[in-house]
Amino acid sequence: MDEETAAELRDLRQSIDNVDAALIHMLAERFRFTQKVGQLKARAGLPLSDKTREATQIERLTALAHEANLDPVFAEKFLNFIVAEVIRHHEKIANDSQG
Amino acid sequence: MDEETAAELRDLRQSIDNVDAALIHMLAERFRFTQKVGQLKARAGLPLSDKTREATQIERLTALAHEANLDPVFAEKFLNFIVAEVIRHHEKIANDSQG
Repeated sequence: MDEETAAELRDLRQSIDNVDAALIHMLAERFRFTQKVGQLKARAGLPLSDKTREATQIERLTALAHEANLDPVFAEKFLNFIVAEVIRHHEKIANDSQG
Repeated sequence: MDEETAAELRDLRQSIDNVDAALIHMLAERFRFTQKVGQLKARAGLPLSDKTREATQIERLTALAHEANLDPVFAEKFLNFIVAEVIRHHEKIANDSQG
């Protein structure tokens, strides 16, 4: 790899690292909110999964993805990936609150 | 569900929707950078996957996750999820540039 290519790669990777730091912190904040949702659902005896809400989220994120020039199929996969983790958290909260 | 619970849920979901909009836009920006990395790698004939770089990223994101109180195991799963998509893009770029 020549020095120019190496410098260009370093530069791009610095930007990717900055974006990743932002993503990690946004995800942490998102899970703080979904933990609160989980506690509220456990308290009110509401079901952990809400298909109507998920359908609304997918529709909204798909529209946002179009706007941001992000593959909408990926945006949906991403939401499903996150929601699976959220449900895992909610199950833990529900189990803990029954214990 | 009583009105207080419904209001609390709406409030939390508004925050989650805001965070999701930020995540979608950060992801879109991240893929813009990785697309450039893919083009650069295709041009320079570099391998699409870089295990050393990935190991550094996992180490860094795990540390950031600790700081942000995010499950480090989830942070690693998240990076793997994103990297799989990036490799898919890079393969497409490499194939297109050979066509």
